[in-house]
Amino acid sequence: MSQALLLEGRPAADAIHRKTAERVKRLRERGIVPKIVFIRVGEDPASIVYVRMKERKAEELGIGSDTVVLSDTAPQEELLSLLKVLGKDPMVHGILIQAPLPSDMDAIQIVRALPPEKDVDGFHPINMGKLLLGDPSGFRPCTPAGIIELLSFYQVDTCGADVVILGRGNIVGKPLAALLMQKGPKANATVTVVHSSSRDIPEHTRRADIVVCALGKPAFLRGDMIKPGAVVVDVGVSRVIDPTNPRGYRLIGDVDVESVSQVAGKLTPNPGGVGPMTIAMLLANTVDAAERLTFNAS
Amino acid sequence: MSQALLLEGRPAADAIHRKTAERVKRLRERGIVPKIVFIRVGEDPASIVYVRMKERKAEELGIGSDTVVLSDTAPQEELLSLLKVLGKDPMVHGILIQAPLPSDMDAIQIVRALPPEKDVDGFHPINMGKLLLGDPSGFRPCTPAGIIELLSFYQVDTCGADVVILGRGNIVGKPLAALLMQKGPKANATVTVVHSSSRDIPEHTRRADIVVCALGKPAFLRGDMIKPGAVVVDVGVSRVIDPTNPRGYRLIGDVDVESVSQVAGKLTPNPGGVGPMTIAMLLANTVDAAERLTFNAS
Repeated sequence: MSQALLLEGRPAADAIHRKTAERVKRLRERGIVPKIVFIRVGEDPASIVYVRMKERKAEELGIGSDTVVLSDTAPQEELLSLLKVLGKDPMVHGILIQAPLPSDMDAIQIVRALPPEKDVDGFHPINMGKLLLGDPSGFRPCTPAGIIELLSFYQVDTCGADVVILGRGNIVGKPLAALLMQKGPKANATVTVVHSSSRDIPEHTRRADIVVCALGKPAFLRGDMIKPGAVVVDVGVSRVIDPTNPRGYRLIGDVDVESVSQVAGKLTPNPGGVGPMTIAMLLANTVDAAERLTFNAS
Repeated sequence: MSQALLLEGRPAADAIHRKTAERVKRLRERGIVPKIVFIRVGEDPASIVYVRMKERKAEELGIGSDTVVLSDTAPQEELLSLLKVLGKDPMVHGILIQAPLPSDMDAIQIVRALPPEKDVDGFHPINMGKLLLGDPSGFRPCTPAGIIELLSFYQVDTCGADVVILGRGNIVGKPLAALLMQKGPKANATVTVVHSSSRDIPEHTRRADIVVCALGKPAFLRGDMIKPGAVVVDVGVSRVIDPTNPRGYRLIGDVDVESVSQVAGKLTPNPGGVGPMTIAMLLANTVDAAERLTFNAS
């Protein structure tokens, strides 16, 4: 049996980074330095690593960045007034609040306090609404946008394709469905969203040309659940206890790689597939924000 | 062969109107008169009729209303400044701009100028975004919400059901998909959105427990495209030339009633199905707006 072609995220992300660096150069020639501010609340070790990765990549591309760290005992008002200050600062084009927030903070209220035109993570309701309406003046959330650009890079045509999305979260499932069902390039798919209440999940996945797994259920999708040649995108990440690993756990995706890679035509590795695309889209969105704030005042 | 049960809109709409009238009574006891302002631009005969129907029903329920008519040569700025005035008026809880607008007006800009907390039609991007995110603090657009309440009235359970929506418009298809895929009551369906670029439409409609037709293609859905016992909701409306009709045309839906009613278990008539629900949801949203502006200042 043949093995699925692996859709590595790195080359696709690098192609976007190269374009982003070009755009930064043009902005800098006009005296504009695109800038993103990262906000981290508390000292979650994974968050520290993620923010550092993003800072480093921003610097590489010529994008300015600041990181503001709040104590996890800081009152929510402190974060809200910080957002107000950054919202008014004309030198700041993008703002990213690193998840997770402390559980006593009201994430919905905080996201609504982000100025939508600097919400480069794409989570403000007005940006979500523009996504559903097909209005390109908002920001696409980074992971769904990254999936679309990854498929496009590897010339997987979504037009007319049956796409089945496993999972209806606000970060991946629902915004990806909204993007893929639009009329237009890199979209135009027949989209089905499957979730915990769906009756016969294999019946849906077996008829799909493209299956996107964003459930967070380790090795959920098996080879007998897909049709031969299908394209499989693995987004979910779960921690599984592993005493042989120095960290005591390892990260695994939603796809049972051994069986799926025998049936699928193409498969995104996880890690190494969608992950690198997410940061590429974040920085591309930041440059979008800078271009919009520079070239049109509307 | 048996005939499909007809899901008449009138009794379901009346049940909502009765609840709305009760809620209006409670608001009036506290000195609040819920009020909606209808804005009509130009003298489109159908728009005149629609606005008059809505005014009359509002009055019946004890909801105050004003209708502002602008000339179809009025500059867009006039409409925008009217929206600003109405947005600030504490006596106005809901604003409805009757479609269609003159073609030289920018509908996207006008909808964005609506204050979201008075957008009882549910078309502002922030309300669309809340819909997709599952945030109940916005307004559900009237036709999709009406479909959901119509199904609920006739005890059609959407939880776990395979729902296929024909059409991806911003008025019905996309917002209805967003509503039905949420976790929670009157939702929780496995939703597929099918459209002009979909490959094998009958393959999708034949596996559906519920088919919603919102294409605007006369008599598109035939009996051989659905499974026996399916529930069919007919939303589309097309004008078909008919010299025997005094108006010279008649209105027909997306469903070929003769063949579908032999196969479907339940079918909404058109007209007389979803139509009456739309106005019921508009006035219920207006009372929602008045309750929110009265009981919580946030």
